[in-house]
Amino acid sequence: MAVLWHCQGVTDTRTAGAVRQGSLRELNLAVVLRRIAATDRPPSRAEIAADTGLTRATVSAVVDDLIAGRLVTEADPAPRTGAGRPARGLLLGDTGPAGLGLEVNVDYLAACVVDLTGAVRHHEVRRVDLRPLSPADALTDLVALARRARTAADDAGLGLAGAALAVPGLVDARGLVRLAPNLGWRDVDVPALLAGHPALTDPVDGVPPLVVENEANLAALGELHARPGGPQSFLHVSGEIGIGAGIVLDGALFRGSRGWSGELGHVPVDPGGPTCRCGARGCLETYAGQEAVLAAAGLAGVDLPADTAARRLADLACSGDPAALDALHAAGTALGVAVSGVVNLLDLDTVVLGGGYATLAQWLCPPVLAELDARVLTSGWSPVTVRPAALGAESAAVGGAGAVVRRIIARPSGWLSRPG
Amino acid sequence: MAVLWHCQGVTDTRTAGAVRQGSLRELNLAVVLRRIAATDRPPSRAEIAADTGLTRATVSAVVDDLIAGRLVTEADPAPRTGAGRPARGLLLGDTGPAGLGLEVNVDYLAACVVDLTGAVRHHEVRRVDLRPLSPADALTDLVALARRARTAADDAGLGLAGAALAVPGLVDARGLVRLAPNLGWRDVDVPALLAGHPALTDPVDGVPPLVVENEANLAALGELHARPGGPQSFLHVSGEIGIGAGIVLDGALFRGSRGWSGELGHVPVDPGGPTCRCGARGCLETYAGQEAVLAAAGLAGVDLPADTAARRLADLACSGDPAALDALHAAGTALGVAVSGVVNLLDLDTVVLGGGYATLAQWLCPPVLAELDARVLTSGWSPVTVRPAALGAESAAVGGAGAVVRRIIARPSGWLSRPG
Repeated sequence: MAVLWHCQGVTDTRTAGAVRQGSLRELNLAVVLRRIAATDRPPSRAEIAADTGLTRATVSAVVDDLIAGRLVTEADPAPRTGAGRPARGLLLGDTGPAGLGLEVNVDYLAACVVDLTGAVRHHEVRRVDLRPLSPADALTDLVALARRARTAADDAGLGLAGAALAVPGLVDARGLVRLAPNLGWRDVDVPALLAGHPALTDPVDGVPPLVVENEANLAALGELHARPGGPQSFLHVSGEIGIGAGIVLDGALFRGSRGWSGELGHVPVDPGGPTCRCGARGCLETYAGQEAVLAAAGLAGVDLPADTAARRLADLACSGDPAALDALHAAGTALGVAVSGVVNLLDLDTVVLGGGYATLAQWLCPPVLAELDARVLTSGWSPVTVRPAALGAESAAVGGAGAVVRRIIARPSGWLSRPG
Repeated sequence: MAVLWHCQGVTDTRTAGAVRQGSLRELNLAVVLRRIAATDRPPSRAEIAADTGLTRATVSAVVDDLIAGRLVTEADPAPRTGAGRPARGLLLGDTGPAGLGLEVNVDYLAACVVDLTGAVRHHEVRRVDLRPLSPADALTDLVALARRARTAADDAGLGLAGAALAVPGLVDARGLVRLAPNLGWRDVDVPALLAGHPALTDPVDGVPPLVVENEANLAALGELHARPGGPQSFLHVSGEIGIGAGIVLDGALFRGSRGWSGELGHVPVDPGGPTCRCGARGCLETYAGQEAVLAAAGLAGVDLPADTAARRLADLACSGDPAALDALHAAGTALGVAVSGVVNLLDLDTVVLGGGYATLAQWLCPPVLAELDARVLTSGWSPVTVRPAALGAESAAVGGAGAVVRRIIARPSGWLSRPG
C-alpha cells in the first residue's frame, strides 16, 4: 500500500482499478519481464507466478508472448533428477530487440549495439576530427557507422528497437543541439538533418526511433550499465576536450529543469582566472580541460584525440616527467575544487572519473580527494569515493544503447506491437 | 495508465488490485481531501464524485468522516435560486489539525502554527544569542515557545498533528545534528534532549511527532508554501550568519544521498581566498556571509542579529554609503559566482534570495544576474530569474509547519485514527 503514496498523484492511481484490458496485458508483460530480468538465476513459470501474484495460466500466456517476441528464451533444461519434466528457467533473449548507441564527439564517431541482456554485440569507433566538418557532413559520416551497426545486428538476429545519439553539447527536448562549443555547433537540428537518411531504426510503437542526448549524461548511464550492482547515485565526470558531468540519482539521470544539467566544465573555479571558450573567466575547463593540461605539461599546441592525449600524459607521468606530474596535480586540484562544490550542494558519496580522466585517475584522484577532504563539510564522517569509470570513451554510446534496452524492459508491449 | 509507469516499481503497483479494505478507505479519504484542497472554489459532493470516479454514496461517507475529524467544513450555503436545497461546497477545515514549526537559529528562536488551509495562526520570535548557551539550555528555551504555540493552537480549537524543527546545520535521519558550525553544535542528539520535556505534540499514528531538519531546507519549503502557484523547481538561498540553500525540484525538497545537500556557503568561490570557519579557503561564506559583508561595509566587529544587520546594511545602501554599496556588490558577485555553478550543474531557472538576502535583494540581484549572464552556458536563450523570498526569517518555521500540514493532506487517515 505504502508504494501508492510514491506515485505522482494519489488521484491518478485510482484509475488502476479501472484499467483497460489492453493496458492490463501491457502491465502483465512488464511485470513478468522485469521479474525475469531481476535475477541471474533463471526463474521458472511457477516461481514467477508465486513472486508476482499472477495466476499460472496468466504467466504462461504472457511468457508465450514474450518468447514469440524473442524478448525471453528458455534456459537449457536441468538434468532430470526424479519423476516429471524439470521446469525450464527463463532468460532474457539475446536474439530479440537491441539498442543502437551512437556518438558524435570532437574527434571520433562511435556506434554500438547492446542486446536485451546488456551485452555489447557490436562496437565501432572511427577517429576523425569533426571540427572542420559541417554538422550535415559529420552526421552523414555517422550514418555510415549506424548502417554497419544495423547490418551487424541483423546478422546476429537482433532487431534495433531504438537509438540514442550522444552529442557533447546542450540538447533540447526536440533533439536540437543548442550549443556544442568544442564542436563549434550552434542550433543544429539533428533530427531534421538525419531525416534525409533512410530510417536508422525500426519504428516501434511507443519507442522513439532516435533520442539525441548530452554525451556526459549518456556516459553516466554507461557507468550505470557497466556496474549493475554499483552505486545508484553518483557524479560521473567526462574529461575530454571539454568537461561534462552526468548526475545519476537513484538510478536515473537528473536532467534539470530543461535538460541542461551537468555543465561541470563551466563551474567557476577561480572567478578571475583565464578566459574560457564560453566567454567567462576561470571555468573548470580552463584548468582541467585537455588543452590546459597538455599546455601545462609542455605539450601546448599538440592536437591529439582525447584518449591519445590521456595516454600520452599517462606515459609521461609514469616515466616521472615533472611537468606532466605537476600538470596533472594542478588539474586534479581544480577538479577537486569544482567537485567539492557539487558534493557540498548535492551530497553525493561517489564521484566517477570518466573519459580521458579514467586513464589518468591514479594521478587525479589524490588531489581531488585532498580538496574534497578539505572542502566538503561532511567529509569528516562521510567520506566520498572517487574512482575511474568502468568504461572508457565507449561509455556514452553503450549508455545510450543500454537506455534503449531498459525502456524495452520497462514497456515490452511497444516492441511486441511493432508493425511487420 | 501512463501514470503507473511513474510509480516506484511496476511490480508493486499490481498490489493495487488486491488493496485491503482499510487501505481503500485510507486511499478514498486522501483522494477526496486532495480534491477539496486542489481548488479555491469549494466543490460539492457531486462534483467530487464526478471528478474522482467514486460513487456519490462513497463520497458522502468519506466527507462525513472528514467533517467529523474537522479536516473539512461546509461552506455557507449559496443563496437559494430555484427549487431544491442548494449543494453546499466543501472547504479545508480551519479548526482541525495544524502543524507546529520551530526554529533554533544563531540569534533567535521561533515557533509558529499553520492550519490545514495554510494560514499562519500563531507566530512568535524570541531574540536571543544562542552561541553562549549549551544545546540543552537552548532547547529548554525553545520548549517554552513551543508550549505557548500549543496553548494558542488549543485556544483556536486546533490540534497539533506534528512538529518540524529547523536547525542551521547538518541533520541526520535520526534528528542528530552532526554539525551546526555557526551555533558551535557538534553531534547534538536533539530528540534525546527534547525527550525530557512533556511531549510537544499529540502523538498521531503515522505522523512522527517531531522532525528535525536543516533550516535552509525548511526555508525553501516556506517559499513553496507562501507561493502555491509559483515555480515548483528553484534554488532558495538563506543568507544569515551562515549561508545555506534548499533545492526544490518538482515541488519536493532534494535532500541528497544522506540529507546533507544545499551547503552553498561552503561552495568554493576562490580556492586561494580567506580561511573559512569550516577550515577550507575561499568558501562563499567568507565573501557573502554576514560577518564578511559587515566588515567590508566598515562595520567589523558589530554583532547584530541577522535581520537587524540586513536592515542596517539596507539603510546604509539607501543613503548611498559607498562602503556599504561596494560591500553588497562584492557579496552579490561572489554569490553570483557560486550560484552560476549551481545553475550550470542543475539547470534551475529560478533563484530565490531568502533570509537577510531578501532585505538586500535590490543590491544583490544586479551583480548576481551579471555573473549568471556571464557564466551560465545556457543564459543566452534561457534566462534565470532572481528574486527575493516571499517570507523573511519566518520562512523556515512556516515551511516546517506547512510540511506537517501537507503530510496530513496526503494521508488524512493518520489524523483520523489518532488515539483519544
